[in-house]
Amino acid sequence: MKILVINAGSSSLKYQLIDMEEERVLAKGNCERIGIDGKITHTVESGEKISYEINFPTHTEAFQELVKLLTQGEQRVIGDIKEISAVGQRVVHGGEKFSKSVLITDDVLKAIEDLSDLAPLHNPAAVLAIKAAKQVFGDDVPQVAVFDTAFHHTMPEKAYMFGIPYEYYEKYHVRRYGFHGTSHRYVSNRLFEISDNVSRNGSRIITCHLGNGSSLCAIKNGICVDTSMGFTPLDGFIMGTRAGSLDASVVTYLAEKEGLNPHQMSDLLNKKSGLLGLSGISSDNRDVNRAADAGDPRAQLTVDMLSYQIKKFVGSYAAAMGGLDALVFTGGIGENDHHVRKRVCANMDFLGIRIDEIKNREAQRGVEGLISVPHSSVEVWVIPTNEELLIARDTEAIVKNA
Amino acid sequence: MKILVINAGSSSLKYQLIDMEEERVLAKGNCERIGIDGKITHTVESGEKISYEINFPTHTEAFQELVKLLTQGEQRVIGDIKEISAVGQRVVHGGEKFSKSVLITDDVLKAIEDLSDLAPLHNPAAVLAIKAAKQVFGDDVPQVAVFDTAFHHTMPEKAYMFGIPYEYYEKYHVRRYGFHGTSHRYVSNRLFEISDNVSRNGSRIITCHLGNGSSLCAIKNGICVDTSMGFTPLDGFIMGTRAGSLDASVVTYLAEKEGLNPHQMSDLLNKKSGLLGLSGISSDNRDVNRAADAGDPRAQLTVDMLSYQIKKFVGSYAAAMGGLDALVFTGGIGENDHHVRKRVCANMDFLGIRIDEIKNREAQRGVEGLISVPHSSVEVWVIPTNEELLIARDTEAIVKNA
Repeated sequence: MKILVINAGSSSLKYQLIDMEEERVLAKGNCERIGIDGKITHTVESGEKISYEINFPTHTEAFQELVKLLTQGEQRVIGDIKEISAVGQRVVHGGEKFSKSVLITDDVLKAIEDLSDLAPLHNPAAVLAIKAAKQVFGDDVPQVAVFDTAFHHTMPEKAYMFGIPYEYYEKYHVRRYGFHGTSHRYVSNRLFEISDNVSRNGSRIITCHLGNGSSLCAIKNGICVDTSMGFTPLDGFIMGTRAGSLDASVVTYLAEKEGLNPHQMSDLLNKKSGLLGLSGISSDNRDVNRAADAGDPRAQLTVDMLSYQIKKFVGSYAAAMGGLDALVFTGGIGENDHHVRKRVCANMDFLGIRIDEIKNREAQRGVEGLISVPHSSVEVWVIPTNEELLIARDTEAIVKNA
Repeated sequence: MKILVINAGSSSLKYQLIDMEEERVLAKGNCERIGIDGKITHTVESGEKISYEINFPTHTEAFQELVKLLTQGEQRVIGDIKEISAVGQRVVHGGEKFSKSVLITDDVLKAIEDLSDLAPLHNPAAVLAIKAAKQVFGDDVPQVAVFDTAFHHTMPEKAYMFGIPYEYYEKYHVRRYGFHGTSHRYVSNRLFEISDNVSRNGSRIITCHLGNGSSLCAIKNGICVDTSMGFTPLDGFIMGTRAGSLDASVVTYLAEKEGLNPHQMSDLLNKKSGLLGLSGISSDNRDVNRAADAGDPRAQLTVDMLSYQIKKFVGSYAAAMGGLDALVFTGGIGENDHHVRKRVCANMDFLGIRIDEIKNREAQRGVEGLISVPHSSVEVWVIPTNEELLIARDTEAIVKNA
């Protein structure tokens, strides 16, 4: 079975065509600047890459173009659009309704649309992509929605409620939802497959998805019990441009002092804060690291804060679970920045975390690796995430059972 | 030396007259409803109590009345106002300027006044009380300011900075200050005196001041390295009516949905949230506990959240310090609610915390007690706080050296 995995933004469409027989990525790419002008970048399994500009008035034209690239020309990977058996769509917000991946029906589509209030930038894009795929592939090709929030559905009430009047939970569904669920689920499942010592049952693990957006997840017996992102992906610790959790008085104080309305305030905290706002240099962790190495004091502060805040979350989740058996790093920063891993794991002997500095430094991008020493009671792993594969697997399973 | 300790609110004046020879409280009381009508409650060392209504137009009249009670009538504890050698004033906010207690000069008074922007409810009250005391006792009686924030001055930058643009730190001094410093300092110093195993040097302790307002403090080698209250006393975990740390998006989302301005939003988060907002029953932990025992689900949620959030802070501070040697509970809830202590310490074996359930349950109000089992590698203590005594001690030390 061949499955097309879609991750849609309001003006972009990332895709992967996966052959589920051997879980091979036949081709992948990105349609950018939809509704503005347009550009497609397409890479096939052999590594050959095409990129050109083309007008994408809507997501529908983007789908038409990627289908053309998949099925026509010298670099085609399938003979006919009919070989695509199903489409798996990443959907950011599943609210309280969706605790797992589901076949997209009219009712499901309506529900995703209704949740746009909770994810105004993301859910409408998914709705556009679902409708466009329906138009291009027809009603007979099933689509499956895989939610970023679904994995966190098992959190207990004490972890997902905020300390605000209860009526706002009832009235607006204000609570912790958590995001990056597909990544946390993928790397935790993968850990249970590859570790000799840590299995689902009885284990307490923390997965650290560190990228431009970042979150930690506390996983007990294979299910999520807490996570750092909250009502929105702003919550937790500092990210590329996001502030993380705050003293709410900072928000009201700055709103008043600077005369910012809620929308402007949200913009400030989501787009101008975090690594960028603190360092004044860049939202990219690599740039901030370089500046810190060169002696820039604000960059050094930023680097220190990032690992300090992650370290504190690790401690808090160990306390939430009554101990820790494994710690997993993933995502662009988690997989590539051995300094962050080293700082987070430093002086964590009391928790049983002892990393092998050489293994940590030499862990290679895109390769799974155990970086703790043999006598570390907590296994520390680097596990590259693969959300697309998990979306494809969920899609296959649901389509086969439908 | 006899020292008058003052804790002033905008319409109240709490006081204690302490004889420093044996650190005896000769008398204590509270002037309430200053500027409205007025009431004084006064208790002398023997336990006798007087309470009556009297008009207090300003803090000056309140001082005059308490001096009258101290020096005149049958229950007088001193013969003359001149026996009061110094006045120790509790001041909530010392900003970045004051890292310890100081003799109040005109410049200091001005600086406290200038910090009112950071503590609009508290610092102006202290200024009123300082001026009124000067009027009543004269220029020759020295006054000392003891700041709630001072103990936290040793926090490293990575702990006190928020993930917002750096310019707001420069422009408005937005950072973590921490509060309850006098209490955290008192109980940590007291721990070093009474514990056979934990001394200042080399120790990592967490003090939990749990009351109507609550905060935790991470103390390494006797100095504060992190604390849960932040820019204001709203930060941290849920309190009587305060929300604790939040996903800032909750603030902007609710402000927009409910049409609240920053002042109204601040009110909501400071006065209608926390135990009160979640339980819908009361801001008083005892009322919420009773309702939880009677089966009220929202009260049970509230009780669960309180100990869960404290537990996570304990874990995070252990991670920040690389382990833990002692955990201290103080404040109204910390000293009296053995359920909270039990829940916070449950399943914390991995950290070396093992409490003796009987000792915990039987710990008496106002009595210092070790509640961990002998083989617990973390000592767990209940230590009643005594901020007034520490204010008096600071005042004596400064006056003697002046």
